[in-house]
Amino acid sequence: MSTPVPRTAVIGLGAMGLPMARRLAATLPVTVFDIAAERRALVTAEGAAEAGTPAGAAQDADVVVLAVRDQSQVDDALFGEDGAASVLRPGSVVVLTSTVGPEPARATAARLAEQGVHLVDAPVSGGPSRAGDGDLLIVVGATEEARNLAAPVLDRLASTLTVIGDKPGDGQSLKAVNQLLAGVHIAAAAEAVALSRGLGLDPKTVIESLSQGAAGSFMFSDRGPRMALAYEDEEVEVRSRLDIFVKDMGIVNGVARRAHVPVPLAAAAEQLYLLGERAGLAARDDSSVVTLLSPPEETIVHASR
Amino acid sequence: MSTPVPRTAVIGLGAMGLPMARRLAATLPVTVFDIAAERRALVTAEGAAEAGTPAGAAQDADVVVLAVRDQSQVDDALFGEDGAASVLRPGSVVVLTSTVGPEPARATAARLAEQGVHLVDAPVSGGPSRAGDGDLLIVVGATEEARNLAAPVLDRLASTLTVIGDKPGDGQSLKAVNQLLAGVHIAAAAEAVALSRGLGLDPKTVIESLSQGAAGSFMFSDRGPRMALAYEDEEVEVRSRLDIFVKDMGIVNGVARRAHVPVPLAAAAEQLYLLGERAGLAARDDSSVVTLLSPPEETIVHASR
Repeated sequence: MSTPVPRTAVIGLGAMGLPMARRLAATLPVTVFDIAAERRALVTAEGAAEAGTPAGAAQDADVVVLAVRDQSQVDDALFGEDGAASVLRPGSVVVLTSTVGPEPARATAARLAEQGVHLVDAPVSGGPSRAGDGDLLIVVGATEEARNLAAPVLDRLASTLTVIGDKPGDGQSLKAVNQLLAGVHIAAAAEAVALSRGLGLDPKTVIESLSQGAAGSFMFSDRGPRMALAYEDEEVEVRSRLDIFVKDMGIVNGVARRAHVPVPLAAAAEQLYLLGERAGLAARDDSSVVTLLSPPEETIVHASR
Repeated sequence: MSTPVPRTAVIGLGAMGLPMARRLAATLPVTVFDIAAERRALVTAEGAAEAGTPAGAAQDADVVVLAVRDQSQVDDALFGEDGAASVLRPGSVVVLTSTVGPEPARATAARLAEQGVHLVDAPVSGGPSRAGDGDLLIVVGATEEARNLAAPVLDRLASTLTVIGDKPGDGQSLKAVNQLLAGVHIAAAAEAVALSRGLGLDPKTVIESLSQGAAGSFMFSDRGPRMALAYEDEEVEVRSRLDIFVKDMGIVNGVARRAHVPVPLAAAAEQLYLLGERAGLAARDDSSVVTLLSPPEETIVHASR
């Protein structure tokens, strides 16, 4: 049985948490927490309450939405000083929207279960603008009971909700596979665009010619044109930060290692994102990874002869 | 000015050459050559003439279509003993449909130009069944004059014809970028399917969940389900041989190296196809590369706990 109008806490108001909190606050009673007071103010301006600690936000909550950056922030938000778990009552539910990997999600679920609190493992994809429109892809690993309790929240955030399994961790596993493909496809698009340039072909024409055929991918069509802008000295808007893939490819390769599955392309892609971070691209759009591969101009001229 | 009904030779009747020759023979005067007489017979049965040497097939031809495996066969067919070039008259045109890389195509064009013969660099994509239906993607690098001379042949084979440049080699360059993406995406799909299995997820459900989103690619949707069959001990029909990617990723990485473009994912993918060949998969469907990555059963059970 779900509460039709659950009292909801949102902890973490970053790139994804902020639009999700706003979206929920429009139709649910929401209390938010973020360490940055100015980010809390962006949601209270729209009718939400705020709190100065995770525990303050979670007090009396039926559903706690975690939208923090990584597992260390999950641990702080739940089990740290003034953590949410200290006030959660049995039968309440924590919705973990962050990408942290299956093992940390399972460990978190086990720790919450000791006090009768459910975990819905529900990593999200789609980016900030789709988060604000309730247009996310959410992949869920949770018991039916926990899913029902979280349904009013999940339904307001997701346009596509995939229940991949009934165990916390299953959502993270599916998200890891998603990020493997996404991260490898972005890196492949960068290689294709840089190689086109190096061979004297116009990258835009190449993308147009190949994106609907056997070489096509969502990322080649989406990131490819932004990569081609690198050759026109145009500013590329940051839609998805490169360092997200530093974190997520780290999770992918860790997960694969523990499962004893060789993933040589994902490993190469992780190194590329690490090189990007090292080159100062961490906060740039992930399409900027192409600049690591782009050939010097004299090589281009030579190759196109 | 193109000849509306050019006398046409087709040299090489392999997986792609055979259906192309049949398609052309239906509406053009065609003479075929292949070292295997039984393959020639498959086309003469449909009204084509045959010859016992490349020169015999090319005698009096306006257009010679080369559909051989690699550059060494191109050299043999054109410039070897009884090669086609020995009989080609000035103003005739050779259509190179094989994937050989831009430099060999440029060298071949230069050598043919010495005797006034044009080269249309026109590598094809799409597989045997689409070849027989005139439904190929053909990417062309050639002068307008040469393209016009070859038009009656190209138009009968291609549903999509992309002229990427006016120099022989440009078509090969674009094809190399196409094969980079295709080869990397197949390998990425294999990693995703093997990792899904290793994490205790059902690969078919994973493919269904992710293929329309940010993780999607043509290859994930096309090869993914064939890879998932590997876990059901089902026979996978050979639609595209794995050793094609051993050859083509070799071309891709060679081309990138000469252009001084780093392509770490393409390099990793090439190694994977080489490992596949070494494991006895050369003549198997390229989706069989997943079997190199699949975890042992006890690891799966452990990971899914």
